[in-house]
Amino acid sequence: MKSAHFILALSVLALASPFAYASDPSPLQDFCVAINDPNDAVFVNGKFCKDPKLAKADDFYYSGLNIPRNTSNPVGSTVTPVNVAQIPGLNTLGISLARIDYAPNGGLNPPHTHPRATEILLVVEGTLYVGFVTSNTDNRLITKVLYPGDVFVFPQGLVHFQFNVGNTNAVAFAGLSSQNPGVITIANAVFGSNPAINPDLLVKAFQLDKNVVKNLQSKFWWANN
Amino acid sequence: MKSAHFILALSVLALASPFAYASDPSPLQDFCVAINDPNDAVFVNGKFCKDPKLAKADDFYYSGLNIPRNTSNPVGSTVTPVNVAQIPGLNTLGISLARIDYAPNGGLNPPHTHPRATEILLVVEGTLYVGFVTSNTDNRLITKVLYPGDVFVFPQGLVHFQFNVGNTNAVAFAGLSSQNPGVITIANAVFGSNPAINPDLLVKAFQLDKNVVKNLQSKFWWANN
Amino acid sequence: MKSAHFILALSVLALASPFAYASDPSPLQDFCVAINDPNDAVFVNGKFCKDPKLAKADDFYYSGLNIPRNTSNPVGSTVTPVNVAQIPGLNTLGISLARIDYAPNGGLNPPHTHPRATEILLVVEGTLYVGFVTSNTDNRLITKVLYPGDVFVFPQGLVHFQFNVGNTNAVAFAGLSSQNPGVITIANAVFGSNPAINPDLLVKAFQLDKNVVKNLQSKFWWANN
Amino acid sequence: MKSAHFILALSVLALASPFAYASDPSPLQDFCVAINDPNDAVFVNGKFCKDPKLAKADDFYYSGLNIPRNTSNPVGSTVTPVNVAQIPGLNTLGISLARIDYAPNGGLNPPHTHPRATEILLVVEGTLYVGFVTSNTDNRLITKVLYPGDVFVFPQGLVHFQFNVGNTNAVAFAGLSSQNPGVITIANAVFGSNPAINPDLLVKAFQLDKNVVKNLQSKFWWANN
Amino acid sequence: MKSAHFILALSVLALASPFAYASDPSPLQDFCVAINDPNDAVFVNGKFCKDPKLAKADDFYYSGLNIPRNTSNPVGSTVTPVNVAQIPGLNTLGISLARIDYAPNGGLNPPHTHPRATEILLVVEGTLYVGFVTSNTDNRLITKVLYPGDVFVFPQGLVHFQFNVGNTNAVAFAGLSSQNPGVITIANAVFGSNPAINPDLLVKAFQLDKNVVKNLQSKFWWANN
Amino acid sequence: MKSAHFILALSVLALASPFAYASDPSPLQDFCVAINDPNDAVFVNGKFCKDPKLAKADDFYYSGLNIPRNTSNPVGSTVTPVNVAQIPGLNTLGISLARIDYAPNGGLNPPHTHPRATEILLVVEGTLYVGFVTSNTDNRLITKVLYPGDVFVFPQGLVHFQFNVGNTNAVAFAGLSSQNPGVITIANAVFGSNPAINPDLLVKAFQLDKNVVKNLQSKFWWANN
Repeated sequence: MKSAHFILALSVLALASPFAYASDPSPLQDFCVAINDPNDAVFVNGKFCKDPKLAKADDFYYSGLNIPRNTSNPVGSTVTPVNVAQIPGLNTLGISLARIDYAPNGGLNPPHTHPRATEILLVVEGTLYVGFVTSNTDNRLITKVLYPGDVFVFPQGLVHFQFNVGNTNAVAFAGLSSQNPGVITIANAVFGSNPAINPDLLVKAFQLDKNVVKNLQSKFWWANN
Repeated sequence: MKSAHFILALSVLALASPFAYASDPSPLQDFCVAINDPNDAVFVNGKFCKDPKLAKADDFYYSGLNIPRNTSNPVGSTVTPVNVAQIPGLNTLGISLARIDYAPNGGLNPPHTHPRATEILLVVEGTLYVGFVTSNTDNRLITKVLYPGDVFVFPQGLVHFQFNVGNTNAVAFAGLSSQNPGVITIANAVFGSNPAINPDLLVKAFQLDKNVVKNLQSKFWWANN
Repeated sequence: MKSAHFILALSVLALASPFAYASDPSPLQDFCVAINDPNDAVFVNGKFCKDPKLAKADDFYYSGLNIPRNTSNPVGSTVTPVNVAQIPGLNTLGISLARIDYAPNGGLNPPHTHPRATEILLVVEGTLYVGFVTSNTDNRLITKVLYPGDVFVFPQGLVHFQFNVGNTNAVAFAGLSSQNPGVITIANAVFGSNPAINPDLLVKAFQLDKNVVKNLQSKFWWANN
Repeated sequence: MKSAHFILALSVLALASPFAYASDPSPLQDFCVAINDPNDAVFVNGKFCKDPKLAKADDFYYSGLNIPRNTSNPVGSTVTPVNVAQIPGLNTLGISLARIDYAPNGGLNPPHTHPRATEILLVVEGTLYVGFVTSNTDNRLITKVLYPGDVFVFPQGLVHFQFNVGNTNAVAFAGLSSQNPGVITIANAVFGSNPAINPDLLVKAFQLDKNVVKNLQSKFWWANN
Repeated sequence: MKSAHFILALSVLALASPFAYASDPSPLQDFCVAINDPNDAVFVNGKFCKDPKLAKADDFYYSGLNIPRNTSNPVGSTVTPVNVAQIPGLNTLGISLARIDYAPNGGLNPPHTHPRATEILLVVEGTLYVGFVTSNTDNRLITKVLYPGDVFVFPQGLVHFQFNVGNTNAVAFAGLSSQNPGVITIANAVFGSNPAINPDLLVKAFQLDKNVVKNLQSKFWWANN
Repeated sequence: MKSAHFILALSVLALASPFAYASDPSPLQDFCVAINDPNDAVFVNGKFCKDPKLAKADDFYYSGLNIPRNTSNPVGSTVTPVNVAQIPGLNTLGISLARIDYAPNGGLNPPHTHPRATEILLVVEGTLYVGFVTSNTDNRLITKVLYPGDVFVFPQGLVHFQFNVGNTNAVAFAGLSSQNPGVITIANAVFGSNPAINPDLLVKAFQLDKNVVKNLQSKFWWANN
């Protein structure tokens, strides 16, 4: 077997396809540091892991989450994920973090879901209007305006958002109940998929004029993570 | 304790808030038939269940899934769920079913997610264009046209749809990996929540004109389940 | 490493040893399409999966479940499984399907268990007498006669059966709460194992004459799946 | 609510319906001692538990597993379970024990399954021929003759047995991967259920003469646990 | 049943016995807000939850995590937990947070374990020497000095600590992979239990003089959470 | 890929880093015998397993647990683990065993935790004073003196011990709810880690004189497993 076939690394994959989840399986060992080249791997309980004897502090470490991110983009927000793609030591351990920066006056982390995680958000700067919508058929919107030091929970898989309603930057940190929590930005998945969804279908689903749908599908959709 | 406080039954709750999921916890007993009045309940492993000695065949039974449903509604489709709300014996057992009827020429089960379940769909009548979209940042659309006898999988939490592209009725049955799989119809959650999401937020998220957003929010959104 | 060692593919294995289960672990990514040659694989969260960028609709697809199966065999029934061996995209997703055909006047899906799954059965044609038996020490038999459109639940690991008591063919579809639900046909496991169980042991366990046991062990046991 | 309705206690239930399982959900607290009268209970994480401040050593304790059991019964073996029915402190903790006594010259723990547990058996006295059968379609029998100090594993849900092939008593201890592992003795579930399974069905499933089936169904089936 | 028996509320219990864990079971519904008086509860999937229709934003909310805590105590650190005891809406959702304040020049979060959670720590202020020790028989110490913006992972159940090696206050936020992560401060559990562990046992285990052990057992042990 | 890179076998790893756990994920197949050389492996459900057709009785077997162990060591006890490192067939099955021998008059299995398992202990010889300590902030000690035939439970992750208070050898068998339960001997992890923890930190955490700490760190710490 040529290891070149494997050098499509975990980190690459993870950057290319960030996910979100909720209740990862329990670990079977102290840790199983993720690897991307089997040449460097050993079996631990039938799983490929970095040799535990070679595990080092940097496998459990990430730096720079204190640095404000640029929010000059169409939605006015930037998510900096810290999951198994950034910290290989998180593999099998069922948790991850993120930093979110919001531009003043309307920076938006747009409606999205995490298919595999609940999120617990801590505001450290600014004023955020946040909310989530319960599933069918109630679709209740539950919202709150949050200030620094406030914490809010977005249950697994529900559509949720954060919106900067203050005139300063806002910053939040989030814990997510998965090593790889996933993100589905609703507008991107619906109107910006590759290839595009049949526009007649979206006309019916969203009760929009076909020209509006085609116009939406031609736009550039920004993924803030 | 007044049992009247409890007569807000599981079946009522479940009708009011149908959900969707993926990997329910393992059972701790043969079965634990769900109940809604503690007066009729016993403890089994610290859980409230119907007394196992009183469990009967009808606790594991549902009928009528062969009856075509009326699809005369704005989306042209009707979902008939068969989960723990319909079959109390499904409690703790991690699976459920649904029947979906589609009107000819465009009956649509609109883009939606199941926050807690993977779906495996079997077409028994008609021709369906189906698909799902992967999570950020790829948002790849994976589609197929299905005919009777075809089976397709929609992974947990991903946005997916079925669209009747034939000129006859279509019918499908779906297995879902949870006793209570949940449904989030995207258009309903985003534009039809109660109360409404701040329209400025949706203008930014969906790059729509504010009048379009307000118009969408004033429409009646049909939940096909 | 010679990949030839690996060309003992998942599909082969799965055909050779079909199983049954109940509460699979949660997924750690959108999907992890199963593969049988590591040369084509990448690591995703420390698991071998097909490169997600190469996943295609056919990885989530199966066809032909509408075709009636031949039931001319000793038990008069045929199970057509649709699990991870048939749909590699089911890997990590915790659900599968099956079609079951029953000959008229006594077609039998004989007493069996699924070691890792609950089953939810939908009758689409014919009349079935179905049942399951609770565990020791009650061993209660819970039965029902089912007609088209009827649904019934067989809890994880319990002995259950379906018996065509009508004079026409019968057909049912079943959802199972595992990607690989397993089947243990009681008669085959007890009297048809390879090699045979010590007959003295079976004489005592089943209170049968030794000649009856030896005769049973010499028969051909038909696995209807 | 009248607590009398609840005095159908866990212990009664558990004696009446002993089970078997494999991978219980993770605990959510140090422990949650099971209770049978809600008047004595408190909520811990939404579960009913004995007030943790009142938990005492005896909630985690059982005695007498050193005492040889009487094996004068039709199968010549006796299982003494030590699960959540005997030790309420095992609730939520996913493990249990059993002692098994075997009469000399053929004491048999007859073919059975644990629907929710893997078993690991330690022989402390005597000589046992043990085995399990894999699922369809291979139905491979894997056996070993065990002596004192030998350990053997019976995977979750598979049919297995132990048979005393020595001329002295035999004794074994077993660990089981569930707080409530369940037992399905094959002969009892198939031929001794209450009410009886339709004999025509068993004639076909087991290729037995109808008189043999009826005779089997009229026998007294001994549950050795 | 007198509800007064239940007014030993979840919040009281949780304050009295804070825990720690790793891989909580998956949720079975959008959310199940924890309650402490059954009079106000309904059954959802056989669990006691607050009526979902009455759930409000404050059930998912906590405030004040921006406020520096007083660290004038023997260990020089204070942990402020935000788990299901503080946010009842976290029930069933498998995640929680904490804020940790450290006094300058040696503020210590002493060696402890979380029996049910992995921790991911983000330093927002100060300089921390952190580490964890792997299990037997290696007992490798893996350490790092962390500065603001640095993130570090402490795998489930392993002994770990944080030590302020700077001359200013330090502050960190931690995500934990459980709704109720638990804390076992080693010194408190070993030398400060109530009642005390047999001192002869500790003499042997810790190779300490008996007077040293007795002196340790007579001290006041500060729980920083 | 050179398989030599993999010949760092599971058994080696397991000997080097024995662990402990609680609620392993559910199995996805009858069994998945662990392997250490991929050349001998096949994929089963995306996991590396020994080819199921080559699995043999010895993969599920261990012998010699009846042999008394030498307890001439500083703590006066010896643990003989029987987990996935000794029985590769335990892989994915969530359970293991151990034998523990205690020297007369003070043989001690010193305070330790299992990060991933609950333990259920059966005394077969001798008299043991056993106990566990609940988590913060109560740190309640729950103890019992055990005699042959007595069973006691140590919940997952809690500090616990056994101490031979009789004047004869003592022997116990333990079931553990994981294939790889892990052990953290408190004294070894805190005072015997490699490299050593900063002594100033331990001075503060344990309120000990710095010379006492340094003396402790210079001792030889015996791992009884």
